[in-house]
This record gives sequence, structure tokens and C-alpha cells, in this order.
Amino acid sequence: MAVEVVSRDPITFDQCWLGTQRLPEATVHASGALAQTIKAELRQTRGIRNDVEVALCILSRLRESPLWPEAETALPADGLGDEGFMVVRRGNQLLVAAEGGRGLLYGYFYLLRYFEWMTADFTVVERPAVPIRMLDHWDDLTGSVQRGYSGGSIFFRDGRVVTDLTRVRAYARLLASIGINAVAFKLTDDLSDLARLAAVFREYGIAVSLSVEFAADPSDQQVVRRWLAAAGRAYDAVPDLGGFVVHAGHPAEGANLLARALAPYGGKVFWRCSGVDGRQDWRDRRTDRARAAYDQFIPLDGRFEKNVMLVVKHGPMDFQVREPISPLLGELQETAFALELQVTQEYTGQQKDLCYLGPWWREILQFDLPGPVVAERTDAIVGISNVGDDPNWTGHKLAQSNLYAFGRLAWDPAADPISLLHEWAAATFAMDDRTRGELVSIMADSWRTYERYTAPLGVGFMVAPTTHYGPNVNGYEYSAWGTYHFADRHGVGVDRTVATGSGFTGQYPEPLASRYENPYTCPDELLLFFHHVPYDHVLQNGRTVLQHIYDTHFQGYDEVAAMIDRWKAIADRFEPAVRENITPRFEAQLANAREWRDQVNTFFYRLSGIPDAEGRLIYR
Amino acid sequence: MAVEVVSRDPITFDQCWLGTQRLPEATVHASGALAQTIKAELRQTRGIRNDVEVALCILSRLRESPLWPEAETALPADGLGDEGFMVVRRGNQLLVAAEGGRGLLYGYFYLLRYFEWMTADFTVVERPAVPIRMLDHWDDLTGSVQRGYSGGSIFFRDGRVVTDLTRVRAYARLLASIGINAVAFKLTDDLSDLARLAAVFREYGIAVSLSVEFAADPSDQQVVRRWLAAAGRAYDAVPDLGGFVVHAGHPAEGANLLARALAPYGGKVFWRCSGVDGRQDWRDRRTDRARAAYDQFIPLDGRFEKNVMLVVKHGPMDFQVREPISPLLGELQETAFALELQVTQEYTGQQKDLCYLGPWWREILQFDLPGPVVAERTDAIVGISNVGDDPNWTGHKLAQSNLYAFGRLAWDPAADPISLLHEWAAATFAMDDRTRGELVSIMADSWRTYERYTAPLGVGFMVAPTTHYGPNVNGYEYSAWGTYHFADRHGVGVDRTVATGSGFTGQYPEPLASRYENPYTCPDELLLFFHHVPYDHVLQNGRTVLQHIYDTHFQGYDEVAAMIDRWKAIADRFEPAVRENITPRFEAQLANAREWRDQVNTFFYRLSGIPDAEGRLIYR
Repeated sequence: MAVEVVSRDPITFDQCWLGTQRLPEATVHASGALAQTIKAELRQTRGIRNDVEVALCILSRLRESPLWPEAETALPADGLGDEGFMVVRRGNQLLVAAEGGRGLLYGYFYLLRYFEWMTADFTVVERPAVPIRMLDHWDDLTGSVQRGYSGGSIFFRDGRVVTDLTRVRAYARLLASIGINAVAFKLTDDLSDLARLAAVFREYGIAVSLSVEFAADPSDQQVVRRWLAAAGRAYDAVPDLGGFVVHAGHPAEGANLLARALAPYGGKVFWRCSGVDGRQDWRDRRTDRARAAYDQFIPLDGRFEKNVMLVVKHGPMDFQVREPISPLLGELQETAFALELQVTQEYTGQQKDLCYLGPWWREILQFDLPGPVVAERTDAIVGISNVGDDPNWTGHKLAQSNLYAFGRLAWDPAADPISLLHEWAAATFAMDDRTRGELVSIMADSWRTYERYTAPLGVGFMVAPTTHYGPNVNGYEYSAWGTYHFADRHGVGVDRTVATGSGFTGQYPEPLASRYENPYTCPDELLLFFHHVPYDHVLQNGRTVLQHIYDTHFQGYDEVAAMIDRWKAIADRFEPAVRENITPRFEAQLANAREWRDQVNTFFYRLSGIPDAEGRLIYR
Repeated sequence: MAVEVVSRDPITFDQCWLGTQRLPEATVHASGALAQTIKAELRQTRGIRNDVEVALCILSRLRESPLWPEAETALPADGLGDEGFMVVRRGNQLLVAAEGGRGLLYGYFYLLRYFEWMTADFTVVERPAVPIRMLDHWDDLTGSVQRGYSGGSIFFRDGRVVTDLTRVRAYARLLASIGINAVAFKLTDDLSDLARLAAVFREYGIAVSLSVEFAADPSDQQVVRRWLAAAGRAYDAVPDLGGFVVHAGHPAEGANLLARALAPYGGKVFWRCSGVDGRQDWRDRRTDRARAAYDQFIPLDGRFEKNVMLVVKHGPMDFQVREPISPLLGELQETAFALELQVTQEYTGQQKDLCYLGPWWREILQFDLPGPVVAERTDAIVGISNVGDDPNWTGHKLAQSNLYAFGRLAWDPAADPISLLHEWAAATFAMDDRTRGELVSIMADSWRTYERYTAPLGVGFMVAPTTHYGPNVNGYEYSAWGTYHFADRHGVGVDRTVATGSGFTGQYPEPLASRYENPYTCPDELLLFFHHVPYDHVLQNGRTVLQHIYDTHFQGYDEVAAMIDRWKAIADRFEPAVRENITPRFEAQLANAREWRDQVNTFFYRLSGIPDAEGRLIYR
């Protein structure tokens, strides 16, 4: 099919954290496609006059480097792996070494990120924590983005892939710079379009997977043949396709059907466990959506083909601002799985409200299940992307930090999210250390601020149905989604105990099961997720549940007001376009926080009849 | 512009209440366009062999009739007016007489409706209660219908008037048969299209008005010139255009600007008072949407041009299943006004739930303000149409009865709505008297049944936002629409008293103001509209507010269940297409009633903690 030129405005967009860095001249001792990418990068980023001699070198040619002895000493016994790299500096010699092109590419971006700070001799070895670090894209072929808050799709428009891939290439570069090596998006009918997209991502070491819907009968031989043919066509077009990311469908049988279709090509099936049909009747207290993924998939553990990877949301519900860890992550023994996080702020402010998610993801990744932490158990980390075709990619300029932190944490789940913020801010804005420190300080706790002014104590939802922005305390209370708080005149929360509730706590290993089962050992921030308690129940923090709700809602609003004041004090140090992007969003966030504060407080005041202990204004 | 032929399925549709009636041969002693319509009608409907000699005759030719002496005696001193008629039977002579074509047309349809029952000598004189009986249409030019629940538009498709006007002509005939003499719909750019539509309606004595949006500055001379030109073009295309129906805008000045533009052509401005901007903050207890129309328009009374007619919703809010009468209807002294009713069931079940609105409209029309009842004060009655291009016009076959009753009540506001149901059912279905009686009995109280299972005691809303179908008790509680119930652990309702509330009761004349001001004299069914009362407040019916809520919600559901049982017992006497239309709608209604019952009961149980006195199941 002839390529139709779609008339569009010239593509202009933000460089994010790759706008300012420069390197000295460097030599590349490697060959192949990724080495070409590195050489092109170096032409683009060189510009520092510096007496350091920089070399990027694959291990097989390492003896050519003057740093060979130091490098050899530092080399791990099991090597660097396909994606690892080392950086060694001695005096005016600086070496980046890797086993192959991908490691070297990540080494190059490491250099680009840290070169300015590399002022003394040092040796560093980096290897990614998990082999697959993916961004999933919910872009429709029409050009809209489901749960997207940053404009339209950068991939699709009017049913097909955009003609000009300049922006896709810039995106691939941004992703590679933070260690992402996989993306997924919808399958188009035109496989040459798919091949064009895959070629752009391939330049940056990123494998493309295809999102597919699967709801057919996997025992139907026609279905089997159709998927065998589809796999064949896809791999004809893109021989290094990562695989299929599957939404919904029959488990096990469907996953295995697809796995067998992809196995000959080395492809994987990423089977999203959120496809579980969680519809229920609000009157039915025996059914508990939180149980669903575990109840459905644990019995199937061991029955999947080797190239099936289950994609498991971090929590048992749906990307709320606070959830307990999904027990599935602790109990799958024989099935590979990916941890799924949501970079797009569906329930966390939709890139209107500032909500830096790094600290939340770090908690999840380091969660002790017990035994190995989550990051050590998972075989992949998948994020649902927050980018769109807004000039700044993410709607809110500061939401770029979430994309950055996601990639960096997927590479290194032990990274400190506040250090990542500093890193991101320094690479993104040209500004003095004090201003950067202030910006980071404004952003650092914004996730907990968002938690404070929205649904309290882990109970979740209380959000406007459909849009998922703004408060509606009872909005999901009588829905079919299993998303209830059960607030009445005496108390609030969901009894998920084994003793008297849905039994969900029993899905956890000890000591977590006992800790969550008991309201006096359950962490405060999850209390209402696991327990229905009276309003005068005293939390471990010494406050009653009701007073805590009031306090956090007043506090959350006040924190947003303070964030704005602090922002306004430094705003004139930013470019006008940045200011004009951020300031009105802060104002929208303050209005949103006010609605949340007042609706939540009034709702509970009307139910409980108990006034605020500090006498602050709660509307009747 | 050339008329483009839009390819469509062949138009097939229900004949509603005009499918079965037949007349004997008749002679027409009149001339003119409407006489031609009557003659064509008679060719279509003749078919009864009967020895009665029927004549339709205008007064100027009455001496030709053998019934001249009887007719002359019965003729009112002030004549029959443009639309009135008389029917006289003596022996085998039957005369329909009118002053002109329109009266004769209505006389013809009277004859068609009642001929079978005219078995003895009698004399009847009919004149309509109000001179303008209009159906307003919220059809978009694209072909969708706002608040329509019966398919797409019968007028528009893809931005213009449909090519084949067969169905529009059938609609005009249906409307004329129930006495409607005006319709309104959106202005199209192509005035020849408008002229085509108007010509079809003109055949049935129906004047077309145009719905327009007006939000411009009426003091701007450019705006004035633009509307003068628009009026000129519209009247060039349709010299007998009724006028403009105006949505939103500056009052008085805007209305008068348009009135002056239309005056040279004899056109009217129908100014919808619901255009009042009622947005407010839920925290603000001083603002009351119920007050808005009165507060805005009473100060302007007397300042409108003579050809301005205010269109006033029957209640102060928005077509809820129960509202008090709008005080504007009682207090406008110097301005002509129309009473606006909603035939389309926006808040009353959306033509999924059976809700025969005749009894409700009759209550409104006969409401004692005091002094003249509403129907005697109003200069026009406007209904928002419930028709669309579904084969049966109204989605639910039985919702045809609402269209029928609207027209008949607009003509005769004293008509008994249950007699109208009998009339409609007899004309619509070929069935025995017992079956008809049973159908009428199922339908007769369906409005009160709907009221019972939805928002209680006049408080309104509690409906799913946006869609307005199904329960969401708190759905509008924190909205900007002034639609609150203020339920808390102690009580529920809106204090609109002068003593302690918004003062809305003070907009009524005495004795209504005092009756509504006092919770012990306020009618039960409006108590929560006017008062915030504790749950144990005892109603005039002897029950507490809370027990009344529980009782009516159990009762409402049970009534729907009984309706279905009764329907199923007679369903096989109806044609399959009718059964297959009605039965699943009843089942949907039962599911809806169950949701309403359970969500409302649970909501109030959670708040109050008070169980049902009869121990019925209320979910926690």
C-alpha cells in the first residue's frame, strides 16, 4: 500500500532530560547496528572541550584500551551480560566497556548522564535487575490514548502508523537512555507499518511486542490456525518481535495456544492477569475482587508453557494511590511473571495533579514478601506509558519525572527515588543547585500528599466513575466493580480478614497474613483495605480513624497550597513555556484537593456526626 | 443546493393510535388546503358500511345541512373560534361543523376517534383550552436526539433534513389527530429544507417554529442586524413560521431583540426560562436553584414585548418525577407564558420503564395556585417530544400513550387521564374490553410506582449523573447543579423555608406559602423538597420518614413485579412484535426497580442505622 502523507503541523517537542548534556570526543571500538547508533549519538552530543580521552569498547577488543588491567580486575566473574556495562576512569582515560552493542548503548547513556560529575578515578559495573523493562501503550489506532492525559498518540493517527517517525525515534532514544528495552502497542493491519515502527525502536535496542485481544475458544482448531498464521505474519514483518501482550481471555489454554504459536520464533506471551472478570453485585459480600487474580491464577501455576509470562498488577485492585502488594507476586512458583506499574496517572491525578510516583514504586519493588523482595522475584517490569503527542510528552512537564523514574527503577530497583529526582531535574532544567533542590523538595513527597487528600487509609476509589479524576465518595459504592468502602454511621472499611471477612488476608504468606489479619498490627495506611472499623478505632499513630481522615484531608490540601507558594517563589527561574505549563496545573490541583478535602470530610461528618477535634471548617 | 438522495432502509413504522379506525362515506362542505387534507383522510379511512349520513361543514355553509336548527341552537355565543368544532347527531344525520379548516380537521379526528361509540343522538362542542399546543424537538442535525430514547431523528440525518418525508407526514398526522398545532426543531442552514418540512406540517394545520441558541450581546448593533436578517430569511422561506424557540441567553434584552425582529411577520419568541444558569457550589447553602427562575424573571415581568412568551418548566427544578409547581406560573402578571412538560422520559425511566405521565400532567394542569388553575393561566402548553425513528416511534410501545395523553390534555386539561388511556388503548390495539381494561389498569398507576422506587418524598435526583437512568443516591450530592438531598445520620431533605432555609417557600402566594413552610401541613409527597427533617419525623400518613422510604421502595419494586405478572397473563393477546417490545422492557424495569430499592434502602440504613420495622431484607 502506498504511504499516504498525512499533513500535520511540524513536529516540535521537548527534549526532556536529554536536552542539555554534552560529551567530549570519544572513540567507539565496536561494530554493528547499535554501534552505529552510538556513533551517531556521539556526533550529536559532543561539544565539551575536555582533556579526558573517552573510549567505548566491546570486551573482545578491550585489550586495545590503556585501562585494560583495571577493567579486567573489575569484570564480574559471570560477565556483564548482554545489557551490562562497566565504566572505568583513571586519570585522563575513561573507558566504557560492554559485551555487545546493547550494553555499550546503556554505557553511553550512563556516560551522558553522569559525565559532568565524573571528576575522579572510579570503577562502576552496572547490570539491569530484570531482563525485560517494558512500556505498554494503550494507544488506539484512531490516535486517541486510553487513560492518556498528554494528547493523542505519537504512533497512530486515523487508523494507521504516522508517516513521519521523527517523534517516535526521539521517544525510542528517551526510553533507551533510561534503560527501557521493550515496548508494546496495538497491532495494525498493515504489517509494513509495524515493520517501520519496529525498525525505529531497533536502532535503540528496544524490542517491539504487540498488544492483542484474546477472547476466542482456545480449543477451536480454527482459532489455533488463525493465531498460528497471525504469529507467522508478524514475525515475517518483524523477526525480532518480542511477543504478544494479551488483554483478557480464557487463562491457561489461551495463553498456551499463543505461546505455542510464538515459540518457534522465540516470542513470549505477556498475559495480563487484570483481564480477570471482576464484575460482581454490590449486595454480594462473599465475592471480593481483591481475591480474584490469585484465585484464578495460583491453581494454574505450573500449567503454562515456558514462554508465557503473567503480567501482574502491583496491587490486587487497580493502580490506586495505595494498595497492599498483590499476593500473586509472592505465591507464583513455576510461572514467570512481570510486575505491572502504571506510569500514566489514571487514579493519581491524570497529569494535572503533581504526583511523583518514584517513592511508591520503590516501596513496591523493595517490598519484603518475605524472603526475596518483589524486584528479585519478578522477571520483568512493565509500565503503562504516560506519553502522548503534547509538546512536552506528558501533559504536566513535571510528570516527565515519572517516566524517568520508571525506567531507572526498572533498571535498578534499589535506586533512591529522590536521588533520581535530582538526576532528572539536573538533566532537564538549566538551573542552580539551590533551585533544583527546592524543585525536588516540592516534588519529593507529592505522592503522599495526593494520598492524603484522596481516599484514606488504603480504602481506594472514592473517585469520579469513568473519568477517575476528582472525588465522588460513593461513586463506586454500588457499582459492579468490587470497589466498596462500606461506610455507614458507625464505621468504614472492607473486612477482608479470614476470621470474619472475605478471607483475602489468607492469600498472603506469614508473617504478612497475620499482620494484615489483625487491625492492631495492620499498617495504618492499609487499615481500611483490610478491616471495617468504627470511626473511633485508634490507629497506631494514636489518632482515631475519623480524626485521621479529617487531619490528612486538611493537611493534603494545605500541602498543595504550600507547594504552589514554593513553586511561585522559583517559577521565574524557569522558561516561560515551562512556567505556563506548570502554574495553571498547580492551580487546578489546588481546586481538586479542595474538592477532595471538602467532599470526603463532609461525607464522613454527615455519617458520623463527629466534629473535627481542632474545630476546622467542615461543611455540613 | 441539489437534493442529495440519502440511501436508507424502506421506512416502515407503527401507525400508533391511527391504525384501525374506519368511517362511513362523508361529504365535505369546505374548501382550502385543510379541506383537501380532510378529503384525502376520508379516502384513506372510509370503509364502514353504515346508514349514518356524515357531513363536515364550515359554518358559512351550515344552512345546507339538515341539522341546521340543532346546530344553530348549540353554537356558543362567542363562536367556535379558529380551532373549535361541534358535532351533532340526530337520527341518521351526523354533522361536524367548524368556522374554518383547522376546526374541521380537529372535528374530523374527533369523528375518527369516537365514531364507533356515537350510537345515539347528541350534541358536542369542543374548543381547545390554549391556543398553542406545541411539541419541541431536541433533535440534532446529525440525526441524534438529545434526551431521546427512541432511536435517531425522524427529521435530520448527516447535517440536513431527510429526503423522504413520508415519516414526517405520518408524524404530522399523528400530532394533528391529538390536537397539536405547533412544533419546533433546529434551524438548518438550508432554508429550502426548512420549507419542505414546514409544508408537510402545514398540511395538518401545524405551525413550525425554529429552535435557536441566543447568547450574544443584545445591545450590539451587529447582533441586532444579524437577527433581523435571519428573521427575514426564515419568513421568506416559511411565511407562516410560528416563531423562534430560544435556548439560554440574556433575558429581556435578548428576548425583546428577537421579538422586534419577528414582530413584522407576526412571529413569537418562546423564551425558555430553563436557560437560567443554575451552577453553584455545593458548599453554598444560600443559593437555591429552585429560586432561580422566579428570581430572574419576576423582576422583568412587564418589560417584555407583546410577542414574547416565556416557557416555564412545570416545576422549579428539572422534570423530576415529583416537584412542586413552579411559583413563576402563579406570579407572572403581564407576560404571556407557556407551561413546559417533558414527554420524553428523561428522569422517568427513559422509555425502558413504563411510566404513564398522564396523571402527573393532569395534577399540574389542574393545580390551584390558588385562583385560576395552571391550565387557565397558561397561554400555551409545550412538551418535549418522545419520538424518534424507532419503528414504534417511542422505544417502548406503551410510551406512545404519553404522546397521546400530552396532546389530548393540552387540548382539554380537564380530561381524565385514565379515560385517555382507555381511549388510546382502544385505538391502538385490537382487543377485547377485558384485556384493554387490564392493560389500562397495569399502566394507570405506573407513574406513582416509578415515584415509589426512585427518589422519595419530592427530594428528586438520586439518579445516575449524565445518563439520568438508574440510581446513584449521592450522584448529584456534590455537583454544581443545585440538586442536593443533604442526607446525614440524623435526617434528610432541603430546607427551603423562609424561617431557616433558602426562602423559596416565600415565592408562593398564600395559602401555599404557609402550607409549604410548615412541615406538618406540607404535603407528604413534597416534604423533603421543602424541609430537612429527622428520620423519625412522622408524616401525615402516620409513618416516619425513614419507614416511608423503606415501605415505598419495597412497594414500588413489588408493584413492578406484579405489573409483569399481569402483563404476562395477557401478553399472548398482543401481536408478537408488541410482546417482544414490551416484555424485555418490563424485565429491565424490574432490574432497575431492584437497584433503586436496594441502593436507596441501603443508603438510608447505613446513615440512620434504623432497621425496617417489618424486618424485610435491607443489605448492610
